[in-house]
Parts: sequence; structure tokens; C-alpha cells
Amino acid sequence: MRLLLINPNTTATMTEKAGAAARRVAAPGTEIIAVNPTHGPASIEGYYDEAMSLAGLLGIIGGRDDYDAVIIACFDDTGLDAARCLTEKPVIGIGEAAFHMAAMLSNRFSVVTTLGRSVPALEHNLTRYGLAARCARVRASEIPVLELEDPLSDACARIGAEVAQAITEDRAEAIVLGCAGMTDLAEGLGRAHGLPVLDGVVCAVALAEGMVRLGLATSRLGGYAPPRFDKG
Amino acid sequence: MRLLLINPNTTATMTEKAGAAARRVAAPGTEIIAVNPTHGPASIEGYYDEAMSLAGLLGIIGGRDDYDAVIIACFDDTGLDAARCLTEKPVIGIGEAAFHMAAMLSNRFSVVTTLGRSVPALEHNLTRYGLAARCARVRASEIPVLELEDPLSDACARIGAEVAQAITEDRAEAIVLGCAGMTDLAEGLGRAHGLPVLDGVVCAVALAEGMVRLGLATSRLGGYAPPRFDKG
Amino acid sequence: MRLLLINPNTTATMTEKAGAAARRVAAPGTEIIAVNPTHGPASIEGYYDEAMSLAGLLGIIGGRDDYDAVIIACFDDTGLDAARCLTEKPVIGIGEAAFHMAAMLSNRFSVVTTLGRSVPALEHNLTRYGLAARCARVRASEIPVLELEDPLSDACARIGAEVAQAITEDRAEAIVLGCAGMTDLAEGLGRAHGLPVLDGVVCAVALAEGMVRLGLATSRLGGYAPPRFDKG
Amino acid sequence: MRLLLINPNTTATMTEKAGAAARRVAAPGTEIIAVNPTHGPASIEGYYDEAMSLAGLLGIIGGRDDYDAVIIACFDDTGLDAARCLTEKPVIGIGEAAFHMAAMLSNRFSVVTTLGRSVPALEHNLTRYGLAARCARVRASEIPVLELEDPLSDACARIGAEVAQAITEDRAEAIVLGCAGMTDLAEGLGRAHGLPVLDGVVCAVALAEGMVRLGLATSRLGGYAPPRFDKG
Amino acid sequence: MRLLLINPNTTATMTEKAGAAARRVAAPGTEIIAVNPTHGPASIEGYYDEAMSLAGLLGIIGGRDDYDAVIIACFDDTGLDAARCLTEKPVIGIGEAAFHMAAMLSNRFSVVTTLGRSVPALEHNLTRYGLAARCARVRASEIPVLELEDPLSDACARIGAEVAQAITEDRAEAIVLGCAGMTDLAEGLGRAHGLPVLDGVVCAVALAEGMVRLGLATSRLGGYAPPRFDKG
Amino acid sequence: MRLLLINPNTTATMTEKAGAAARRVAAPGTEIIAVNPTHGPASIEGYYDEAMSLAGLLGIIGGRDDYDAVIIACFDDTGLDAARCLTEKPVIGIGEAAFHMAAMLSNRFSVVTTLGRSVPALEHNLTRYGLAARCARVRASEIPVLELEDPLSDACARIGAEVAQAITEDRAEAIVLGCAGMTDLAEGLGRAHGLPVLDGVVCAVALAEGMVRLGLATSRLGGYAPPRFDKG
Repeated sequence: MRLLLINPNTTATMTEKAGAAARRVAAPGTEIIAVNPTHGPASIEGYYDEAMSLAGLLGIIGGRDDYDAVIIACFDDTGLDAARCLTEKPVIGIGEAAFHMAAMLSNRFSVVTTLGRSVPALEHNLTRYGLAARCARVRASEIPVLELEDPLSDACARIGAEVAQAITEDRAEAIVLGCAGMTDLAEGLGRAHGLPVLDGVVCAVALAEGMVRLGLATSRLGGYAPPRFDKG
Repeated sequence: MRLLLINPNTTATMTEKAGAAARRVAAPGTEIIAVNPTHGPASIEGYYDEAMSLAGLLGIIGGRDDYDAVIIACFDDTGLDAARCLTEKPVIGIGEAAFHMAAMLSNRFSVVTTLGRSVPALEHNLTRYGLAARCARVRASEIPVLELEDPLSDACARIGAEVAQAITEDRAEAIVLGCAGMTDLAEGLGRAHGLPVLDGVVCAVALAEGMVRLGLATSRLGGYAPPRFDKG
Repeated sequence: MRLLLINPNTTATMTEKAGAAARRVAAPGTEIIAVNPTHGPASIEGYYDEAMSLAGLLGIIGGRDDYDAVIIACFDDTGLDAARCLTEKPVIGIGEAAFHMAAMLSNRFSVVTTLGRSVPALEHNLTRYGLAARCARVRASEIPVLELEDPLSDACARIGAEVAQAITEDRAEAIVLGCAGMTDLAEGLGRAHGLPVLDGVVCAVALAEGMVRLGLATSRLGGYAPPRFDKG
Repeated sequence: MRLLLINPNTTATMTEKAGAAARRVAAPGTEIIAVNPTHGPASIEGYYDEAMSLAGLLGIIGGRDDYDAVIIACFDDTGLDAARCLTEKPVIGIGEAAFHMAAMLSNRFSVVTTLGRSVPALEHNLTRYGLAARCARVRASEIPVLELEDPLSDACARIGAEVAQAITEDRAEAIVLGCAGMTDLAEGLGRAHGLPVLDGVVCAVALAEGMVRLGLATSRLGGYAPPRFDKG
Repeated sequence: MRLLLINPNTTATMTEKAGAAARRVAAPGTEIIAVNPTHGPASIEGYYDEAMSLAGLLGIIGGRDDYDAVIIACFDDTGLDAARCLTEKPVIGIGEAAFHMAAMLSNRFSVVTTLGRSVPALEHNLTRYGLAARCARVRASEIPVLELEDPLSDACARIGAEVAQAITEDRAEAIVLGCAGMTDLAEGLGRAHGLPVLDGVVCAVALAEGMVRLGLATSRLGGYAPPRFDKG
Repeated sequence: MRLLLINPNTTATMTEKAGAAARRVAAPGTEIIAVNPTHGPASIEGYYDEAMSLAGLLGIIGGRDDYDAVIIACFDDTGLDAARCLTEKPVIGIGEAAFHMAAMLSNRFSVVTTLGRSVPALEHNLTRYGLAARCARVRASEIPVLELEDPLSDACARIGAEVAQAITEDRAEAIVLGCAGMTDLAEGLGRAHGLPVLDGVVCAVALAEGMVRLGLATSRLGGYAPPRFDKG
């Protein structure tokens, strides 16, 4: 099967990193098509970047048909509802993917994300999904998204410090990493801190593969009905 | 003062109707600048239209500075959070304006909107704002937005039928009309059914004028911090 | 228009202070009638004072008809629901006014009030209004209401310390001042701490003026139906 | 022990009926002191009556000391929080008593009360207490309180019809009768409909006796701290 | 009347302690039958112990008929719903008993229990019962259940330290002790810390006696319908 | 990989049906070990059956080690929390599996289950998981579990009638079938009614395979810590 993994920002190194993470866990026979828009924000940090990336994101989904499911590889699940109106194929956001998986592995989890400005959008997603009560706290490491691409950064140490605090202060039983750019940190942090640390990219791959194999499709009734292009 | 009223869809007749409604209630000395994007959906009916109208909407807000507050004249409060990142001036959505006003005039209200496909987005806004518990039900009249522009339509009668049901079935004490295109129906429906019927356009004008006169501004801390345009 | 601003306690200096604050922001042509009961508690600090001030408060509302809207100038929104049964004219509590305004300027706000004994009543109002999820925390400065009338008090500094903690500990994006006696502190605290600091008195004036100009009235259906004075 | 049962309205026949119901279930050695204010509303139907009965109610509690616990015998739990500030002795409202008992005998219950105007106040109590999720629906029989005192009324039949609908439409597993005046109907309705039908008066007697025997007292910390009578 | 008090674990000293506490508060004429299963966990610390004690617990309830009500004397309310399917007689868990009583004596309470592993089960009960919003926090003292049986333990001091923190950090107005083994600590802690400290065992006795005297029974409709033993 | 699928009741035909459904969707290389306890209820219909099946269920999980993940194939997610204490390997309940999948394919879903007596347990699971707000209604078809094993039953037609009502009355966008015995009905009902109809058995297979391939494990911190077998 073919999974269309879209990084909604324009930073190709993040797209490659997310694509590589997805391929590492994909089942035999699953092809990962990792793409990003050519125009739009270089990173998505808060509501404005999210809004400005939607046209590019939706243009990609509407502009091709060579996939079995879509993965939106930004932790704020950019344009998730709009994308589901565009195609009956499953559309998974990496944020929701990690939240749902964490909810089946722990009683309560905490999220560690990048900047404080992104926290309200993530809290609002948790509320909409219904999983806010399962999340102890959304923590900001105050690391800008693009710094995660810098090999010389001490980002991992600062994220690890937040993980440690989440265990003691939030009584978190699992951690969700709140940015696609953190995908390569999950395994190490999990070993170091002795609890499940979830990365949304790989969670979304597993969910998308499962939905495709089960033949599940997005509902066409109600909120995800196809757009009415001819309103004349 | 000058209020920038933006109809995020491209239908000029709706922009004119909303602008006229705003001018009827504006205080002496308040100027209403009613505009709409030149590109984007002709009406906003659900998540996809909402997403595709954002670039035009935000371009208008970012592209001028001759206003004291912004009114987003679409009932799903299109791009409200993103707009608040773009300017410190108050930004009011007509949906939230009507919800907050109704919450101060009744114990519980119902919403009567256009198509069923728009209901989940409105329910999700009510949940985010915290006012879901105050709303008895969001009802769909199944009238497309642009039919509200047709003088020969029986839209008013069908909306009135939903209002009557909201009173008896939902025990609604007030009604919120769920589309900018319904702005001219509120007064008549209120008289006919004997309860407050709120139109978001005029509620937003009153709230925006009040915030400007009080010198209130949108917070710059946390989720509404200005976008980081230089992320290099 | 004429706004009847009622301070439900018997301390005339608070009435004058609230009236003056209201007049500073009132639109041209708005008259503020600031009154208080002659009998009842000198300040409202908790559930008992609130209950004992109701007869005086409701007697004022029922005893005159020379106003277009009512403002209840105590932050616990004393007798708000009962007052709405007495008149079809809009009735606004300064607590709800500030909460609703803050919810349109920030993702989350904190409240700074007087004594800890008042906190549960305010939390209970937030829950009823539906805005509890928008409020990070209700903080007590442990300053008695009447000390706010003492020019030699260090109340402002102690309230400022709570504001600073709300920003760092609660991640509050806006502050609501939780007592009518704090009305003259809002502007200075906002400048000093760099976020919106809302005073309910002026928020209520703007909301009341708006509702009157829009011709909005309190619902007569359901919970706010007029009292049945003849039950014989 | 002595239980002070206060009917907050001025209708002596209701006070006698509630007192008699309380005595039927009181333990040996428990004395029921059934009283009502001499001034105030003849019945409590909605927010205004509730407010106007508080001074009389609290005057009774503050004016005597010959009791071990207080029962507030109006289903809207009139002045419950204020009363708890006045005495350390347990204070039980008949509404909360029935709600808590029903929550231990069923998964979900419905309430059948008098007039629709009283429903929002009861829903608001359920929300404050935390038990709203346990209540399927608050139903109004549209029977005025004082009609329950009329032996020729068909009130019982109309209440029974609501009970039947609550079982089929609300999937209620238990019924709470929402007025002190219905105390003598509970047993018959329970037999007729085959499910627990709870009357708050007798539930409150059992809870008050239990709290007194256990030596439990109302907290003096926080919201129920004693009033500060000298604020000079 | 006869109350069947079941300690669902197999530690007879805990059964005796709970039985003695129940007898101290029982009304004249109330007999306490204190029993425990002969097989199963020696203490109930978390979900697994809870599950493994159910067969023994339900076997006792189903195996005898010489009681008027059942008390489940483990703070996680082991098997409460299943037990209610087995008998129409009232069944009270000591956890719910203390939660409901605390909700009528304070605005907010905290729980102090044994091990952190038990906290999620208690939080989940509070959510189901609807009382989560009334509970400030469930605190773990990290004292194993059986250490409470050791007279040389410093358990009381460590629990007292949690009580002190609950008052200052959680703004708790009352404390619920979260283990049947703490029943003999409540009175001393209440005196020492100056707030209500509730033990579930005695609260359950008072509630069970009250329900029996009122003739209340568990609903047979819906979720507590008797098991269908013959499904052939 | 090997998935241990446990039907917690003792009806082998249900075990075979669930095992066959699982094998139809399992990835190449996935072995389904479908088992059931030899003692316990023949079907799980409500709280009592659930409790009485736990010892058998947990005995199977604790008694073997030849699996990579566990699927609990009863829709009430029998013993899910207790099972997670017994093994670090992922444990998925078919109820939660279907709920989480439906939440990623629709804005709101309804559940169609067997008997009304089972509804409260399912509602309580939805509340615990946090997904209650995503579920419009849990509907009972009043078909006993074992009737689903009878080829001559008209069960499918009666379940279809509930599906149709869920679309019109609940505005459900997707349907979750609320019993493992309905697994073979999902595809046909989905085609007939034109919306996603989810069966928990196959959803759980996809989730379990995904978690195993990602190397995810159940948290050992907090509520799912391993049982303390030696408490001496």
C-alpha cells in the first residue's frame, strides 16, 4: 500500500526525517511517499503558521490520487478535518495518533512539545478529541522547531529534563513527543526514563496501515461530507 | 472608530448585507469597513471551505492597518485564533459574539444554522469556548448559505420551524442564528416566537466597539504571540 | 441611555469608585446611576454576605423603572439569576462580564480576588457559566475588600505579586481582577505586567450599552420567567 | 438528637407535611423541629423566590442553637452554602440528599419537579454538586407547588405520567421527586412503577442523623469559613 | 438490622479493625457481620488485586441472605456494580460513602491513600461517580496497606504530612482517608489539622443504616438488573 | 508475531467466530491464538458476568508467555486494567479499539450493543477513556449475546434498524458494533447504510499488530505497575 506522508511545512530536512522514521516501521509492501508544500511556513509554531500551511497541504491531497491513506506529519494535526472532507481514504494526524496510542498504554500521559505558543492549540485538540482528561499536562521545552534540525543543539537534554519532570510532577505514566522533528528521540528517551515515549509519526503509520488493511474509510455523513464545489 | 468587518467568503452580496446590518447598530462615529477576499470559496459550508478561505482572510488583516478592531463575519469564526496572532487589536468572531451574548440573556440557547455538514464545526467551537454546556442543540435547517440570498426562497419559514422546535424540544430560552446570511431575520423571528433571537453580526459590532472604547487588546502571551516570521 | 449600577454592599465609597470607573468609559449620552442598599453587609466576602445582600439588591431593581439595563457591581455576580426574573432589561454581573471578555482576548486567564473564602463561589460561577475550562486558577490575595479602600494599604503590590505568579505558574494569558474595589488598579497592572488585566465594572458597562443599543432583552421563557406574585 | 427542618417558604401546611414525613422515618430519640419563616414567598418557584426566602431562612438558623443538624426542606437547596457558613453543624439540602442517595442506588436517575421555571436552578445545582452526569433529565410536571397541597388535584397522576416517560425515554433507573410537597407520593409511585422513587425529605433525615452520630461537622476552611461580622 | 461488612482481602486483622470501627458508630440494634474471603489477595493494591478478589467477594454476597445491606470495606469499592446485580438490598462502597459525605461538608476535598499504583483506580471511580470535580487531588502516602497493621510503623505521621500538604497546596477543605486500614486515624488527624477527616467505613455504616430504615433498594432496571443465570 | 485473542466467556463458537474474523484481517506472519476460559459465564451481559469472568481471563494471560500482545475479545473490555498489570506486552480491548478508530473516522459515532443491561458499563468505559463526548448514544438492540450465534435469528435486521435510527436520530457519522458476536455483520451493515460500521475484533488486531511492530509496551509506572505478589 502507499501512504502519503505530508509535512505541512516547507523544510525538506524535516520531511526526510519523518519519511525515514516512517519507512523504518512500515510493514513490508508499504511505500511511504513523503512530501511537503513548496510554499508556506518553514515551521509550524502556533495558530498562524498552521493556517498559512493549509492551502499547500490540501492542494497536495486534492492534487493526486496515488495513495491509500494520508498522514499529516505535524503535531498540531494541521488541517485534519478539512483533509477528511477531501478524500474518503483514512487521514491520520500524528498528534491524534500518538494521543490515542498513549491512551491504550497508560492511565495518564504528558506531552512535551516545542514552544509555549503551541501549547493552546495542542490543548484545544486534546479537548476536541475527548482525550484532555487523559493528558496530565502539555509541557513546552521552549526549543524552536528548526533547532531540532541542528545536530549541535542540546535539545535532547532539555527535552529529557521535561520528561523527568513530567514523571515526578505530573505523575505521567507515558510521554508523547509533541513535534514531528523529535521522531528520532523517542527510543532513547524511553530507554533512559523507563516509560513509553511515543512519537506520532510511527504511531500514524501503524494506524494508517491498519485502517487500510481493514478497509476502513472516513465517513461521508455530516461534518466530513465532500465539499460542494458547485454552489451556483 | 473603524471596524474592519471581513466576510471570509467571496460573495459580495453577503458582505453588503452584513455591512448594512453592522451600520444599522453601530454607534455614532463608528465606521464599518466591510470587505471580502477576491479569491476563495463563495460560501463557507464546513471544514474545507473554512480552510480554503484562511489565506484570503488573513491577507486582508495583515495587509492594512486602518482599523481599530476586526470582525470575522462567518459563523464558524473562520481563522479566529490565527487572526489574533496577527494583530493586538481585538478580533471578534460573529459566532462567539452571539454565544457569549446569549449566555448572558438565557440559561440555555439553541443554534439554528444552514447545512448539517456545518454542525460539527460549530459544536467544536462551542466546546473550545467552554459554552457547549450552555447550548441545548445546534440545529441544521438544511438551507444552503447562498439560498439565503434568494428573495424568493422560503428559507425564513423553514428557519422559523426550527426555532419553534428548539423552544418545545430543546427547552431553549434563546436562539442564535448560525449564519451571517440570516442577519436580517433575527428581529422578525424574535417577535414571532417571543424569545431573544441573536444575530452574530450585530453582537460582534457591540463587543468590538466596547473593547475598543475600553482600550482592551488581545494578549501577546502564549497562544496569540505574534508569528515568528524570521525563523532562520 | 441610563445604566443602573448597583453595588450590593452598603459601602458608599465603593459605590462611588465603581460609578466613577463606569462614567470614565461610558459612551456619550450614557448616564450611570450608581446606588447601593442602605441595609446589608458592608462588604461581600463569601456565601453568607452574598445571601444577606439579596433583599436590598432586588428591592432596588424592583423599586424603580428609570433605567435601560442593570449592572450588578459585585464580582460574585450577587443575585444575578433572581434579578433577571425581575426585569426584561439586560442584567449584567461584573464577574461574568470580565470572564466573557477575557475569553475573547486570551486562551486562558487567571482571576485574582480578595479572600480565599470567596474562591469557591467564584469557581462555582465559572462552572455554571461554562467558562471554568478557560480559567487557569482563581487566586486569593488575602486582602479584605475594605482594605482596598485604604489609600495607605500595600494591596496593589500584593495583587501585583499574584499577577506575576499567574503568568509564570498558571501560564495565564490575561488576568481578571476579582473585586469591584480593584477597578482602579487594572490599567496600571496591565502596563506593569504586559498582558490584558480586566476589571469587571468597565466590561459590564460596555456589554450593557451594547445590549441596550441592540435592543436585546433577557429571555422570559424558562428559568427567567417573571415571578408568580399571585400564587393563591 | 434534634434536627431543625426548615421549610424556607411560608406555607405551614407544607412545613407540617415535611415534618410528618421526617418523623415517620426518624430514629428513636430523634426529634424533628419543623419550622418556616413568617415572612417571604408562599412557595419557591425559581430564582427570585429562592433569593427572597434567604433572609428568613438564615435568620432561623442564626437565631437558635437547640439543634444538632439542619435540613433545608426545599428541593432547590435554598441558601445551602450560606447556611453552612453560619454553623459548624451539618446542613443538608433535600435536593442534594436525594441526588446523592439516588447515585448509590442506580446508574442514572431522572428528576420530576413542579414548574419548568425551576428546572435551570436544579440543573445548575446538579452541575455544582458534580452529579449532572448521573442525572438523565430534569422533568417539569407543570404542577405549581401549592397545587400539591390540594387533595382534589390530579397532580399524582400527572407526576406518574412523567415517571413512566422517564423510564422509557430517559432510561432512568431511579426517580427523584423534585419538590418537598411530593414527599407523600414517593412510596406509591415506587410501587406502581417498579423502581426506586426518592423523596429528599426522608433522605435528608437519614443523612443528617448519620452525620450527627458520626460526629461529622461542616468544614471551617475556605468557602464555609464563618462570616466576618466585624469588618471595621 | 444486620449489615454485612465485607473486607474483600484475606487479612483478618483488617476485617476485625473495620468491624470494630463499624460497631463503634452503629445505631442500637444494628448488628455488624464482618467477614472476608478465605482465598484471594492479602491486600488490594491496584487493578489486579481488585480483580482477583471479586470471586470471593461476590461468593459471600450470593451465598447468604441474613443481612439487610452490604458494605464493601475496601476503598476502591471493589466489585460494587457487580454486587448490586446480585441483591436488591443496598450495597455501599466505603470509597463512595466517604466521597458523598465529604461533598456535603466541604466545597472541595482531597484523598490520602496508600500506594501511587492505587491512585488511577480511585480517580476513575471519582470520575464515574461524578465527583471528580469535587476532589482537589488523590494523594499517595506510599505506605503499603499491610504496614498500616504494624503498630510500630510511622504511617500516621506520614499520612499527617500529606494532610498538611493537601490543606496548603490543594486548598482542600476536607480530607478523605483512602484505605479501610486507616479507619482508626481519622479522629486524631481531624483534631490535629482542624478540618473534617472522613473514614469510609463509618460513613458507609451511616448510609447503609439510613437506606435500610428508609426502605430504599437498589434499582432492578438497566445496569443493575439481576444476572441471567439461565441463558440457554 | 503471535496475538493471544481471549474471549472471556466460555462459548467456544464465539471464540471461533472472533478468531476467524481476526485471521481474515491479520497481516502475513501474524498468528492468532484464540482461546476462552473453561469456567465462567457463557456470555457477558452486564457487571456481574464481567466480574465472574475475570479469574479465568487473567489466569490465561498469567499462565502462558507465547504471545506478543493480548486482545480481550469482549466489548466491555473485561479486565483490561488488571490485564495490563500482568504483562508489559500491549493489551487491547475490542471496545476501546473500535472507539478509538471510530474517533479518527467520524465526528461522532453511536454504539449498537445487545441488552440494555450492558449499556451503563459501556457508557462508563467511554467516560473513563475520555471518548464519551465523541459517542452520540449507546443503543441496545435487546438481542441476547447467544442469539447472535443462532443462524435462524433475525438479529441482523433488528441491529440494522438501530443503525438506521442512529443515523437519523443521533446524527451518527459512524457506527460501532457493541458485541464480539456481531463481528460478521459489520461489512454488510456498512454497505447497506452507507457509513463506516466498526467491529472491535478487527480493529484490535490492527492496533495490536501496530503496537508490536512499533515495539510499544504498557507503562510500568503508576496504575499498571506489576502486582506485588509478596506483600509479607
